[in-house]
Amino acid sequence: MMGDEPAMSLSEFNLIERYFTGRGPRRDDVVLGVGDDCALLRVPGGMELAVSIDTLVAGVHFPEDTPPAAIGHKALAVGLSDLAAMGALPAWATLSISLPRVDEAWLEPFAAGLFALAEAHDVALVGGDTVRGPLVITLQLHGHVPAGTALRRGGARAGDLIYVTGTLGDAGLGLAVAQGRIAPPADDARYLRGRLDRPQPRCETGIALRGLASSCIDISDGLAADLGHILDASGVGARLELARLPSSPELRRHGDETQAWRLALSAGDDYELCFTVPPAHAAEWERRSAGQACGSTRIGLIEAAPGLRLQRPDGSLLPLAHAGYDHFDDAGMQP
Amino acid sequence: MMGDEPAMSLSEFNLIERYFTGRGPRRDDVVLGVGDDCALLRVPGGMELAVSIDTLVAGVHFPEDTPPAAIGHKALAVGLSDLAAMGALPAWATLSISLPRVDEAWLEPFAAGLFALAEAHDVALVGGDTVRGPLVITLQLHGHVPAGTALRRGGARAGDLIYVTGTLGDAGLGLAVAQGRIAPPADDARYLRGRLDRPQPRCETGIALRGLASSCIDISDGLAADLGHILDASGVGARLELARLPSSPELRRHGDETQAWRLALSAGDDYELCFTVPPAHAAEWERRSAGQACGSTRIGLIEAAPGLRLQRPDGSLLPLAHAGYDHFDDAGMQP
Repeated sequence: MMGDEPAMSLSEFNLIERYFTGRGPRRDDVVLGVGDDCALLRVPGGMELAVSIDTLVAGVHFPEDTPPAAIGHKALAVGLSDLAAMGALPAWATLSISLPRVDEAWLEPFAAGLFALAEAHDVALVGGDTVRGPLVITLQLHGHVPAGTALRRGGARAGDLIYVTGTLGDAGLGLAVAQGRIAPPADDARYLRGRLDRPQPRCETGIALRGLASSCIDISDGLAADLGHILDASGVGARLELARLPSSPELRRHGDETQAWRLALSAGDDYELCFTVPPAHAAEWERRSAGQACGSTRIGLIEAAPGLRLQRPDGSLLPLAHAGYDHFDDAGMQP
Repeated sequence: MMGDEPAMSLSEFNLIERYFTGRGPRRDDVVLGVGDDCALLRVPGGMELAVSIDTLVAGVHFPEDTPPAAIGHKALAVGLSDLAAMGALPAWATLSISLPRVDEAWLEPFAAGLFALAEAHDVALVGGDTVRGPLVITLQLHGHVPAGTALRRGGARAGDLIYVTGTLGDAGLGLAVAQGRIAPPADDARYLRGRLDRPQPRCETGIALRGLASSCIDISDGLAADLGHILDASGVGARLELARLPSSPELRRHGDETQAWRLALSAGDDYELCFTVPPAHAAEWERRSAGQACGSTRIGLIEAAPGLRLQRPDGSLLPLAHAGYDHFDDAGMQP
């Protein structure tokens, strides 16, 4: 703490204990969680992993329009989606919150949303840090993956099949709902908004892809941008069959197929997986995929020629710019 | 990314690559660093650790008064100090920055300050996340410690000797310098401000304490508050000999001994270690301690009776309130 103003008052400290300590799954491999300088996590070989997180804040301000429970869900979901894209099994999370003031009406649903998803994926919250400042949430996740089996971006080869999980474009349309730009029927609006606010990380699929996929990424910035990262890292190109892009009935009811393509390619926030499978593994993947709740759809082919080609049902190519998309590099540094 | 405004533009993405990728120590145990969905870190037993970090931001604002190089140093130092307090050997860091705009004049010295300290402690930056928003920095560290040897807060027993590293109170006085509340001679001002802006984490001492100390904590909130956490966690009390509190010549030149005690007990931000050593290990610790650059000073004794007693040179007790200190619980949740 610095100066005369404590970083956290007694009541704030207890508030954190109240909302974030002793909740979520209990794990045998958490030797020491919240309450000391570091969390201690058991790793193989007689070692423990010590984990620390701190936040420095300058600034005061706070706009928001998403329900706090959805913020809690999504803060964890985006990290889980990253683990899913690597084929890692989630284990531990740490949370840093900068908060302008103690607001129980915000914190309780935030924590509830976070821990509901943590339960579903057996993730223990093993540490955290809170400071006073503008609302900023940082959540770090730790997962395990057997050495050498993690799914990277750089392994796609010409001839590999391109797949995506679930359906694409719903979250982008959900944002239009949230912003009042469109007003679909209530049931559709609820579904679309839910896809924006409560993405379901595809951890089960990521783990099932170990040993089969040649590359994988999660779709946070839109299919074109994220598949573009795979193409760049792998030094290859791709051809997508637009007619094969999976879309929900709710999305299809809203507009024509060109609009559905545009949303799938560029709208982002879907947190589905995009991955490539060598032809030799395709049959095995189709078999394993049958057991996945979210399913997966083959949407195209990796080609040697660089670039992304979008093929209409009549065989003609849709220019990338017409897909509402003009560059490949708008993603932040990630992990 | 959400909606029409990309989370990061191309130039911002490259900026992050420019300042934070491929810098700092190279480590053999970093299988995959920045550039994919997760960092992959080798841990014993044929496993890798996957690490992900994400930040959600709401809010825009940005006041600052500390040189960016010092912010970079301190962001890492506070986490290293946490590891030191556990006796863990630092290994990996992840960084999350919320930034209102691209400001190279800020980012470059920030990165330089961070990586200078990272080099000194052989810490690899293995991942990061950047978003647009108010200036908020979250830095997470990972370190190793052999199973069962980590220094906890809860192990102090009556009869144990209490030690601190370095000198206490300098950072508190440095804050008064920074705020213009005092104006000591220029050399003293520079030293005190440096102690505030560039704390030196005591990792070497923490590791040397393995197997000897019964408890340990780093002093971020002032000796009374942080020793208080040890007392609370251990179910014991303590008696401090105020005359033994180590202080710098610069601090002693500024005021009387009562002021020095007050600063040491309550000012915080020193990032020294406070730890307890059972009498049976005291001789061995004194021997090991001789090799520590920062040194350590025995300042008191753990007692069975709860509470903290501050003993003046004449044997009388200084009331806690007179030490500028009135509660034990103003620290944030920590890891």
